Amino acid sequence: MKRVLILGSTGSIGESSLDVIRRFPERFKVIGLVAGRNGRKLREQAEIFKPEAVCLVETQEFFSFNGKFYTGLKGVKELIETVDFDICISAISGSAGILPTYWAAQKGGRLALANKESLVCAGKFITEVAKEIIPVDSEHSAIFQCLNGERKDSVKEIILTASGGPFRKRENLEDVTPEEALKHPNWSMGTKVTVDSATLMNKGLEVIEACWLFNLPPEKVKVVIHPQSIVHSLVRFSDNSVIAQLGVPDMRIPIAYALSYPERLPLEVEELRLELFGLELTFEEPDTERFPCLELAYKAFKMGYPYPIVLNAADEVAVESFLKREIPFTAIPKVIEKTMELADFEEPSSVEEVVEIDRRAKELARKVVECL
Amino acid sequence: MKRVLILGSTGSIGESSLDVIRRFPERFKVIGLVAGRNGRKLREQAEIFKPEAVCLVETQEFFSFNGKFYTGLKGVKELIETVDFDICISAISGSAGILPTYWAAQKGGRLALANKESLVCAGKFITEVAKEIIPVDSEHSAIFQCLNGERKDSVKEIILTASGGPFRKRENLEDVTPEEALKHPNWSMGTKVTVDSATLMNKGLEVIEACWLFNLPPEKVKVVIHPQSIVHSLVRFSDNSVIAQLGVPDMRIPIAYALSYPERLPLEVEELRLELFGLELTFEEPDTERFPCLELAYKAFKMGYPYPIVLNAADEVAVESFLKREIPFTAIPKVIEKTMELADFEEPSSVEEVVEIDRRAKELARKVVECL
Repeated sequence: MKRVLILGSTGSIGESSLDVIRRFPERFKVIGLVAGRNGRKLREQAEIFKPEAVCLVETQEFFSFNGKFYTGLKGVKELIETVDFDICISAISGSAGILPTYWAAQKGGRLALANKESLVCAGKFITEVAKEIIPVDSEHSAIFQCLNGERKDSVKEIILTASGGPFRKRENLEDVTPEEALKHPNWSMGTKVTVDSATLMNKGLEVIEACWLFNLPPEKVKVVIHPQSIVHSLVRFSDNSVIAQLGVPDMRIPIAYALSYPERLPLEVEELRLELFGLELTFEEPDTERFPCLELAYKAFKMGYPYPIVLNAADEVAVESFLKREIPFTAIPKVIEKTMELADFEEPSSVEEVVEIDRRAKELARKVVECL
Repeated sequence: MKRVLILGSTGSIGESSLDVIRRFPERFKVIGLVAGRNGRKLREQAEIFKPEAVCLVETQEFFSFNGKFYTGLKGVKELIETVDFDICISAISGSAGILPTYWAAQKGGRLALANKESLVCAGKFITEVAKEIIPVDSEHSAIFQCLNGERKDSVKEIILTASGGPFRKRENLEDVTPEEALKHPNWSMGTKVTVDSATLMNKGLEVIEACWLFNLPPEKVKVVIHPQSIVHSLVRFSDNSVIAQLGVPDMRIPIAYALSYPERLPLEVEELRLELFGLELTFEEPDTERFPCLELAYKAFKMGYPYPIVLNAADEVAVESFLKREIPFTAIPKVIEKTMELADFEEPSSVEEVVEIDRRAKELARKVVECL
């Protein structure tokens, strides 16, 4: 019986994780749940899964619960230090996930990682302390599966697939509305990651995440557009054999894999039947002119620490501003680029300093937004 | 340094194998070459690779050569018993490969298996004695690669891809000529296997081969048509994750893999660049009405021993007769079906008996051809 802690249990990945766990009560026990501000949903989850501890990070809300109740970021730290878990699913959205992910990694056990920002911003510190990281992002899970049983030195490159988002074929991006940006063609996800998919920044962050996860230089991490989201990613080996992982777009597959690896669970999700779907699987190069965010991510990683933190912070601010209709869709990469240009931060020497740079980079990005 | 023996060195797989070996002289040494009747080519190969022994099986031809020279089937046996090899590439075409493959398997070492007939007809005996079998067929190599690092009990099914051959979209197959049947859309191969690809019998034989190689029942071995021959095969796991192996259609990739496994060699073959090729990868169900051979193979395997031997023998005779313009293309499955109907052989208890049944089944098939 594996004891599971979920950071970000009321979000999209958190809920899918609980859906997987619910189907295998003989294998997994939810030991702790951490949520941002959705107290109502956290209470429902606590009633069903009966964890030892829960934490509501961003509100002072409270509900009666037969176990330990924590609040605030300090509460998250205490909960992680107190409860005894085998697997931590890190699924908090955005840079808010950095510190909790780091604390969970420090504690030992398996880190099932869905919060890409923690590796983008603090990859150095987290990979240093983590005992085992199994990725939950569908692309990274795909790569992880393709690398199964292979020797690291025979990897020529990894190829992350991107759907291309809802505007892959749209010429004029000036007048994109938040409503349009939130309609992802294949995946149902949180708002931040959905807008990031529309700008291709999501893939940019994933490139940086992949460099940390698989210990590869950015030259060995490629991106191709694959609008059908069936091939979740590929690995090219030295002999030019390519291994790919495919499946219906359902996050429960990578979540279950991160929980059960090296085993695979008998998972009742829709079967991929390529011959019946009548699908044509197509692949294109990303259009970096209309979608400059992907190149910005490569640039930030190559510029070195702390630029990936700045990239991510500026993107969070820009997406928020876009969703509030303060800036147009096409200003998102401009805000990020300008913030990176103006940024002048020291290299962080701890995760606490990473969080401080993230905070200051966001302030800077907000000023950039105001000056637009 | 691995010492390599090649059975069938002057055929398509044999020549590609030598092309791979030539590029890695620090890793592989050709120790023995066995050819059917192409003495001129065998002599050229012997001059370049300087093996310890050669054998010409089907002619009494002789050439001056600085090493042991064998002839006839008896010669093959002596050669296999005498030379000391680490890897045997079994690439003789058709049922002529059964005995040599069995002898090589008995000797120990790695069997790099391209001769599918030996598993179709004598899978029971060969898998019993072989120390290690690494498949060379592109589909089985793909499956083998996809199973790397995975647990056998989480395999839900394996999915062999088939190009569908040159007549996938042709309605009337009555008037297909040998010239048309020998034009494979994607692969350049020997004549027998090319015609087998056009009838889908090749895939039928591969289904039986896969059952032996991966120890799976036929219900767990599926076939889908994939006209582009880029995805070489797939494995569906219990969690509905699908792993696939892709590459340009070049037999040197699976040959090199069978030689170097578990390592991968830096192989200079064309890189698969899906985003540049502008390919659409498509998948369809096989049309078992126009191509009944595939179902005949499943049927033969389910009927049990010795029916796969009869299936294969009748197919060899039917293809030969078709190439001699004695029977039309559409009579190939008819000859096989009728021969299976008439066959009344005991279950073989040795490989020698397998060969005897193969011989008698061919006689029977020839009679069926005459009565058409």
